[in-house]
Amino acid sequence: VECVPNFSEGRDPAKIGAIADAIREAGGRILHQTSDIDHNRTVITFAAPAAIVGEAAFRGVQKAVESIDLRTHRGVHPRIGAADVVPFVPLRGTTMEDCAAIAHATGRRIWEELGLPVFFYEAAAVRPEHAALPDVRRGQFERPAQTPDLGGPALHPSAGAAIVGARKLLIAFNAILNTAEESVAREIARAVRASNGGVEKLRAIGVYLASRGRAQVSMNLIDFEVTPMHEALNAVREQAARRGAAVESTELIGLAPAKALEAAAAHYMKIEPFDLGRVLENAVERCGI
Amino acid sequence: VECVPNFSEGRDPAKIGAIADAIREAGGRILHQTSDIDHNRTVITFAAPAAIVGEAAFRGVQKAVESIDLRTHRGVHPRIGAADVVPFVPLRGTTMEDCAAIAHATGRRIWEELGLPVFFYEAAAVRPEHAALPDVRRGQFERPAQTPDLGGPALHPSAGAAIVGARKLLIAFNAILNTAEESVAREIARAVRASNGGVEKLRAIGVYLASRGRAQVSMNLIDFEVTPMHEALNAVREQAARRGAAVESTELIGLAPAKALEAAAAHYMKIEPFDLGRVLENAVERCGI
Repeated sequence: VECVPNFSEGRDPAKIGAIADAIREAGGRILHQTSDIDHNRTVITFAAPAAIVGEAAFRGVQKAVESIDLRTHRGVHPRIGAADVVPFVPLRGTTMEDCAAIAHATGRRIWEELGLPVFFYEAAAVRPEHAALPDVRRGQFERPAQTPDLGGPALHPSAGAAIVGARKLLIAFNAILNTAEESVAREIARAVRASNGGVEKLRAIGVYLASRGRAQVSMNLIDFEVTPMHEALNAVREQAARRGAAVESTELIGLAPAKALEAAAAHYMKIEPFDLGRVLENAVERCGI
Repeated sequence: VECVPNFSEGRDPAKIGAIADAIREAGGRILHQTSDIDHNRTVITFAAPAAIVGEAAFRGVQKAVESIDLRTHRGVHPRIGAADVVPFVPLRGTTMEDCAAIAHATGRRIWEELGLPVFFYEAAAVRPEHAALPDVRRGQFERPAQTPDLGGPALHPSAGAAIVGARKLLIAFNAILNTAEESVAREIARAVRASNGGVEKLRAIGVYLASRGRAQVSMNLIDFEVTPMHEALNAVREQAARRGAAVESTELIGLAPAKALEAAAAHYMKIEPFDLGRVLENAVERCGI
């Protein structure tokens, strides 16, 4: 099982290190870690067997509750809690149902042992209005629009709430523009995101990165098999061009699945015909040698 | 071990099918097969354990010697034999030395049992002037410039010679231009290929595809870790643009390794920073779960 907790701390190496250590000591194998100082947020990608992934996530959340105070937290990314989002993702040998069960068990411990209210989202949602992350996070820590599924209605005074769930692989992918105009990034985000009738399965917000002097379209691609990564990027590039701007570079937050990159390569190099069986490793795996 | 024999028949499904069957019956697992009617050539990519890969290749060569007559063979790709090239490529658990030994043993059987003269090339070369494929094939079947390492000096009357060797993974990759002018493809090939001081580790020829009415730059990327696929393509695109032409599409002959595509995706999407550890599957493999 893969787990990709997002913590509302992207600047203090000691705090972030302590959270990562807690996950590691509980048996989580950290695959990647991204801290962003403008978002003031850290995304840790780790893998662990189904039997211990919940414990490893719990230890990280516990450390975050102890060390992160949302009352003084500032960052450009929306957040409702110190351990803002805790998704479990089936990788191999586990199903979405298994991950939803892990999310429910872990969420229960978070509320009972840490006193941190919990929302369940995506495949672990218990209320349909909590299924989509942006809805749960509306109003953020300061003015939450929704009531937690466990605990609440008041949030934890310093750590807010944790949004725990089970979902498919997601690609978190940001496009950095060649402009400092946050309004341009926000317009592009509005034009491309699914919730405004843009690109299917794409979430996007526009933010300003003070540390780089650049505006950014920050994206979540929630089903890359429906909307490939390159389609999302091409939509942003097109909307940027309409506004006289361009994408200067992009960044991955965490990891991207190989097939999303393989499909993007085939697209940009115009390899025709192409299917994932044209990738040596995929072909070898299929033939079972 | 991967083996990627190239046969000088790309039009007759029955002959090609019989060669593929012979490989399969000897235990080769066919990963991919590409026949091109303009090149009049078929590339079969198969994998087999080291102990049987030579036998499977030998069976395919035997079938080709029986069924392909180079005296009547026409195609735009240079060739010297019915079973033109037979490279063995180390995949997992075998070394280049193992593959060179397999090449030597298989080459000996091809000469002794089939009476087909053999050149050894790349890591299996026994004479330095035979190391590079284009040198061995100079003059082709009709006017061979080199003498075989086994058998010869005369080639087999109908089947020519086989060029057997061991090499790294190679990417065979063609760019189809938006023009029918073969001279444009030839100029581009001359400008980009390593042997003319172009792009390192890139081989290229320009040909005309009568079936499509298009000129093509046909490339072999012999070390994609030195020259990535996207660099080779970008060089062709640039040279094409200088001549008022463009790359309409590309095609892979056989398979491409995942990391070549992953690096290309990162290049075209400008993912920065990027390394192959940002690919989920690679990261999971490294952590050894």
